[in-house]
Amino acid sequence: MANHLDSFFGAMADPTRRAVIERLVGGPAPVSELHAPHDMALPSFLKHLRKLESAGLIRSEKQGRVRMVHIEAAPLAEAEHWLARQRRLWEEQTDRLESFAKSLDVASKKD
Amino acid sequence: MANHLDSFFGAMADPTRRAVIERLVGGPAPVSELHAPHDMALPSFLKHLRKLESAGLIRSEKQGRVRMVHIEAAPLAEAEHWLARQRRLWEEQTDRLESFAKSLDVASKKD
Repeated sequence: MANHLDSFFGAMADPTRRAVIERLVGGPAPVSELHAPHDMALPSFLKHLRKLESAGLIRSEKQGRVRMVHIEAAPLAEAEHWLARQRRLWEEQTDRLESFAKSLDVASKKD
Repeated sequence: MANHLDSFFGAMADPTRRAVIERLVGGPAPVSELHAPHDMALPSFLKHLRKLESAGLIRSEKQGRVRMVHIEAAPLAEAEHWLARQRRLWEEQTDRLESFAKSLDVASKKD
């Protein structure tokens, strides 16, 4: 779990790699189409794809002469779950502080 | 926005820094308490705190002789929002594929 999140968050800490994910949530795409919008040599772009692949975020397969790239959604869901949990715990803490502040307010009005 | 997400995801790609966030969602804590569970020299630990601070995820303030660390929840929410959006788009794509597969199935039964 820790290593999943390490490699997932590391993979997402780059705008090119996030752009690839943003494209692939709309459906699979060939490498050439993924590369086209990026002003970057193909070998550099392929390094980004390898980083996404080693983080388990994409897989690719040869279809004839074209290599198609697919997204793997499970790591996205895992990271979203982690973030949602942190937010929930933080909100609970904030709610407790507000209740405490209200109880102090009520107590001071009784004086 | 791009830079926020770069620095946020970069900050979260480390188990020590995620552990600090997991502690701070429960409320502010002094540096010494945050450091205690980590088998790491204080200067190394402080580097992690600086990385979290430069990503806008924490702020700290001196209270007497103690430096208290607080979480800043906005970047967590921003990243969760980005992830939720990717998941939603991916689910919409999956739903479209399912509808398409069903329509093919209906069409083949009419034959």
